[in-house]
Amino acid sequence: MTLLRPAPSETAQPVAPRPRGQARIRVAVVGASGYAGAELVRLLHRHPDVDIAGLTARNRDGKPIGDEHPHLAGTPYVLDATVAQADAVFFALPHGASSEQVPTLAADGVAVIDLGPDFRLHDPTDYPRWYGFEHPAPAALADAVYGLPELHRDELRSLAARPTRIVGSPGCYPTASLLAVAPLARAGLIADLVIDAKSGVSGAGSEPRPELSFSAVNESVRAYGTKGHRHVAEIEQELAGLVPHAATLVDADGVARDVTFVPHLIPMTRGILATTHIRPTRRVTQPELEELYAEAYEQEPFVQVVDSPPETKHVLGSNLCRVHVHHDDRTGRILAIAVIDNLVKGAAGQAIQAFNLLHGLPETAGLEQLPLAP
Amino acid sequence: MTLLRPAPSETAQPVAPRPRGQARIRVAVVGASGYAGAELVRLLHRHPDVDIAGLTARNRDGKPIGDEHPHLAGTPYVLDATVAQADAVFFALPHGASSEQVPTLAADGVAVIDLGPDFRLHDPTDYPRWYGFEHPAPAALADAVYGLPELHRDELRSLAARPTRIVGSPGCYPTASLLAVAPLARAGLIADLVIDAKSGVSGAGSEPRPELSFSAVNESVRAYGTKGHRHVAEIEQELAGLVPHAATLVDADGVARDVTFVPHLIPMTRGILATTHIRPTRRVTQPELEELYAEAYEQEPFVQVVDSPPETKHVLGSNLCRVHVHHDDRTGRILAIAVIDNLVKGAAGQAIQAFNLLHGLPETAGLEQLPLAP
Amino acid sequence: MTLLRPAPSETAQPVAPRPRGQARIRVAVVGASGYAGAELVRLLHRHPDVDIAGLTARNRDGKPIGDEHPHLAGTPYVLDATVAQADAVFFALPHGASSEQVPTLAADGVAVIDLGPDFRLHDPTDYPRWYGFEHPAPAALADAVYGLPELHRDELRSLAARPTRIVGSPGCYPTASLLAVAPLARAGLIADLVIDAKSGVSGAGSEPRPELSFSAVNESVRAYGTKGHRHVAEIEQELAGLVPHAATLVDADGVARDVTFVPHLIPMTRGILATTHIRPTRRVTQPELEELYAEAYEQEPFVQVVDSPPETKHVLGSNLCRVHVHHDDRTGRILAIAVIDNLVKGAAGQAIQAFNLLHGLPETAGLEQLPLAP
Amino acid sequence: MTLLRPAPSETAQPVAPRPRGQARIRVAVVGASGYAGAELVRLLHRHPDVDIAGLTARNRDGKPIGDEHPHLAGTPYVLDATVAQADAVFFALPHGASSEQVPTLAADGVAVIDLGPDFRLHDPTDYPRWYGFEHPAPAALADAVYGLPELHRDELRSLAARPTRIVGSPGCYPTASLLAVAPLARAGLIADLVIDAKSGVSGAGSEPRPELSFSAVNESVRAYGTKGHRHVAEIEQELAGLVPHAATLVDADGVARDVTFVPHLIPMTRGILATTHIRPTRRVTQPELEELYAEAYEQEPFVQVVDSPPETKHVLGSNLCRVHVHHDDRTGRILAIAVIDNLVKGAAGQAIQAFNLLHGLPETAGLEQLPLAP
Repeated sequence: MTLLRPAPSETAQPVAPRPRGQARIRVAVVGASGYAGAELVRLLHRHPDVDIAGLTARNRDGKPIGDEHPHLAGTPYVLDATVAQADAVFFALPHGASSEQVPTLAADGVAVIDLGPDFRLHDPTDYPRWYGFEHPAPAALADAVYGLPELHRDELRSLAARPTRIVGSPGCYPTASLLAVAPLARAGLIADLVIDAKSGVSGAGSEPRPELSFSAVNESVRAYGTKGHRHVAEIEQELAGLVPHAATLVDADGVARDVTFVPHLIPMTRGILATTHIRPTRRVTQPELEELYAEAYEQEPFVQVVDSPPETKHVLGSNLCRVHVHHDDRTGRILAIAVIDNLVKGAAGQAIQAFNLLHGLPETAGLEQLPLAP
Repeated sequence: MTLLRPAPSETAQPVAPRPRGQARIRVAVVGASGYAGAELVRLLHRHPDVDIAGLTARNRDGKPIGDEHPHLAGTPYVLDATVAQADAVFFALPHGASSEQVPTLAADGVAVIDLGPDFRLHDPTDYPRWYGFEHPAPAALADAVYGLPELHRDELRSLAARPTRIVGSPGCYPTASLLAVAPLARAGLIADLVIDAKSGVSGAGSEPRPELSFSAVNESVRAYGTKGHRHVAEIEQELAGLVPHAATLVDADGVARDVTFVPHLIPMTRGILATTHIRPTRRVTQPELEELYAEAYEQEPFVQVVDSPPETKHVLGSNLCRVHVHHDDRTGRILAIAVIDNLVKGAAGQAIQAFNLLHGLPETAGLEQLPLAP
Repeated sequence: MTLLRPAPSETAQPVAPRPRGQARIRVAVVGASGYAGAELVRLLHRHPDVDIAGLTARNRDGKPIGDEHPHLAGTPYVLDATVAQADAVFFALPHGASSEQVPTLAADGVAVIDLGPDFRLHDPTDYPRWYGFEHPAPAALADAVYGLPELHRDELRSLAARPTRIVGSPGCYPTASLLAVAPLARAGLIADLVIDAKSGVSGAGSEPRPELSFSAVNESVRAYGTKGHRHVAEIEQELAGLVPHAATLVDADGVARDVTFVPHLIPMTRGILATTHIRPTRRVTQPELEELYAEAYEQEPFVQVVDSPPETKHVLGSNLCRVHVHHDDRTGRILAIAVIDNLVKGAAGQAIQAFNLLHGLPETAGLEQLPLAP
Repeated sequence: MTLLRPAPSETAQPVAPRPRGQARIRVAVVGASGYAGAELVRLLHRHPDVDIAGLTARNRDGKPIGDEHPHLAGTPYVLDATVAQADAVFFALPHGASSEQVPTLAADGVAVIDLGPDFRLHDPTDYPRWYGFEHPAPAALADAVYGLPELHRDELRSLAARPTRIVGSPGCYPTASLLAVAPLARAGLIADLVIDAKSGVSGAGSEPRPELSFSAVNESVRAYGTKGHRHVAEIEQELAGLVPHAATLVDADGVARDVTFVPHLIPMTRGILATTHIRPTRRVTQPELEELYAEAYEQEPFVQVVDSPPETKHVLGSNLCRVHVHHDDRTGRILAIAVIDNLVKGAAGQAIQAFNLLHGLPETAGLEQLPLAP
């Protein structure tokens, strides 16, 4: 989609005011033709400290962004074949596609935030196991920081001083799942964990597939990935880092209890709801759980602990995560629920949050937008 | 909605052929203004052995059915204030509303199929606990049959010879949940059970409520009933009847493990998907599970065991239930999934299935319609 | 999708009773992998006088139908590469694909109902103009009957006695549009006609395309085909046959006023609503219009004239068309609205209706299903 | 919905930076419990020159805003029963509710932007005719400015210097309809106008009604308001102000041709698409039309003329209006289409745009947000 006559000047465009005196950061997006790429453009375009220096997408050299993302037709961007010179680069590519390029770029001093999975897992053997490829830069995995600020804020900040700066930005399901249960994990309360997750369709990407057509998806719900969804790897890695000692997530006889994770496709475009069912390691009470969660998240700018089950719509378009915890007195189980917008807190917004931390900017810069409802 | 000029004769109407010579059964529906009532009319109108003798709805005396259910405006029915004389009566009322009327009617020899919860639970103390009312006819509870044909077919058939004939037709969630796990329960394989269920909006009934408006529901998903959904009572009652001995659904130390049940509202009109997560009492294999399920359901006209996760859309408008079972080798858990149309197999269709059994008719009479997709 | 163990016998399957003694008609469907093909199977499977002798789909030889249409996995059909021997064949192919095969088949005495456009237009020059191909069998166009029973019932019936029997089954938009305005056209009342049509996504077929993905369609509405939709050709052809003399659809100065037709894509799966805006040739009144419509359709088994604007949902899954007419006293314009299920009355159902007429069967055979709502 | 523990400080909240030194404008919203009210809060909360001084809603005194609008639960606002002292007040009330209060308030020097219809129409006799009430302050109607900046920018700006400042902010349908055809009207090109409009459900407000429930709306489309929608009054008033002389919108014989306007309800939450069908007063060409539109809107910050039919989704959440014009060479008609987000450019956003003009602020202040897609 093209505008017949673009707006005559930048001032007439609906763009962000950019008041700060400081030097602006030039950023590029590699993989700007997908949904996460478009969302990065939407948010970065209004980021007060950023200039978008380049947008890369394969086979679309020279095309205005409106051809790929009609809602962005009013912005001045054009897609390039090659990565622009930038201070920071966001990668939004399928798995296996960034791991070749990122280490070189990072070695040149460019900050890299990778929205794909190539730098999320620390153990190189997880890549052949879960993603089916040998990681070409296993050494870089040790340096990369898992970009969930609520778990790794200090590491993200300290990246600023490091020679190579690589962030592996979390998957959408792990973001919701980990924020739902992190306080329980840290407190050693998880004896058994079932994550039953529900996602809108945009999580599956923008490539046309028969099972993602409107007629196939609408008025239907189904489970998928039942034979092992790749996001399990991240969830288990991060949970292992949270639990205080071996006594949790382990059977009475010492056998590890792996996390059960079953995702579902919901007839909606955006949003993830992670319902987590936890059998606790000991008796707990509702007030105890509420205190635990309120304390865990009270300083968090983007996590809101709410007093009733949250809805995905109520975080739409924002970087917010809403969390609710409930103790079922009848069964003794804990129910912890989290909702996010999979393309914001589950992708582009979270990547920008990490970018902000890494650059010493206010963590919320460019992410202050309130949710859009109804 | 009214037709300007109704079709001149019954033969010009799109009605069912009614070939059989036998005496036809006169049926009435009490509560015909709700969704389940409309669905009963849709299906009974085409039932080869049935005449609809009366449709009752409070405050709608004399109104043509098209005023309440515009899609049925082409049928000749009018709503009454009083129950018509009938051989069989379907009740589709809110909880507590049928228990006063049903025993008298049943004592008069009328077969009653109650789609509400008033005759589902055998233990009278469950009514104050789960539904907040004292059951006015506790003696009738012992006689009533829980109308899930896949679990109680012989009892439903033998009702024919009994002086009072009352069927408590199952709730929509219990139907899907029980059909998902019944083979495991019978085999004593359930050590721990989490039911994470997803329902379309029609399950909440047709009364307007802010949280069920299109703008509230669309593009959103949420859990609800987290403090204890009433359908748990049925699920636990029926599971207790299935498990072979005390060793199942019980902790190592003998403590009962109650069923965890969390329902979710999905932005779709019809359909229930019950995802059940089971920790088995012993090691099992995928072939063993498939054999167990195939055998359990191979004679069932309406239960189909499928080789991949089923979708609600693929049973839409039909009385089918599709079930899928999967053993996760990594975690050792079993995943069992069932889908139904909540208004057919979860309500009106299942009630007619029980009605057929009770009257010695072919079990599938009036229910042969294939699913409507896409 | 495959059933682990199919039902042991046909009687256990939810299939139609087939009571009639008469010889059954063997039918085949060419193009059974698309939506219209699936809908033909759904309806023909329950048709009391029909046996499905073969289902053809390119590149799917030997595949069970459940692989293509999961909701039909419980039926016994397998897709073939070649057309089965049959008494009647339904074609459900893209334009240009049936015109080579149909004449030969029809010359062999097979009745052909073509759901594609290849036999809808009588003027061969319309094919290069609207569809971009030279019709390979222009002679056959004169023999083919436009299969809208409400306009051509006698011709369809008389086909039975003809040596070649070819029905060009109408497009979905023309069906709704023509039924909306036919009484006005016949009465010479149309001075100027704007058809603003709204369609669900299934009308665009089952091939995956980026603009038909759930994420693209949901929560959006748009016009398309603004440069000339092919269905205009049918609409104008049939309207020309209806208007009594040259004075209608013609300017005061004798210049023909072509029909304006603009279709829109609506975020729903099924359904067409045709809103037609008519400037009448003379003053009319609401009672006059209601009488005109009631009389026009009072003998029609599938057309219902209703007293308020109809909704697509209220004909879902049925062969019904609902029509509403309104005179705007302020502007003098007439508003005529029609709704259908695009895959039933707009495709498979209408084709079966014509098939019934052509074979001297009751017109409603196999089409008695009531609409599915909510 | 309530947060368990609100964020400790404003800086931790995801709020807008407010950099400007100038005095901030205190605004209040009357009617903050509806959708337009919520949208005003969403946008004003991030407006760089505004402080929200009060939010009023009947029967909700003292309730936190999250109780009414869960997505805003993270903001600090509480609903009041009385109007706060403010420099400017936005009214978002049903028709007839603001006309009593506004004149007094305006006489006290408060700027009023009324999102309801009470100050849109200049002719007092239009109120009993279209809205069924006698306007209590007919004198104020002469002073009020119709708040469509694209038609009345100078008047809105000049309000600043006037003693009473009242803006009647346009209805959602008139906004889309007028922006679609304004260039044609100004050029005297409209001989005949049919507006066929499509709206999402949020346009009907947040009060629960059976016909707006999810189950009623989803998978359905219907026309409504066919007996005369109130928005016609605005459309005709503004068109009359645009047409250059009596020769347009008038028959050959001098009779006024009233505007035909038929709205439809679409199964989506937000968005309006106005499809306008115009018979021109003389022959035109596509290049001529494109030039006409490009020129008309080239200085507009929020109107984008695009080269293909626009989709509602591509302006979601933004204050943009996209317009497309097409000449049908076959019929000679013009097709002009406009899309807006009914709650932004059709309500809250447009009101803020007028507010900005009235206060001499940059017209785009607080409205720079890009659309949210997919």
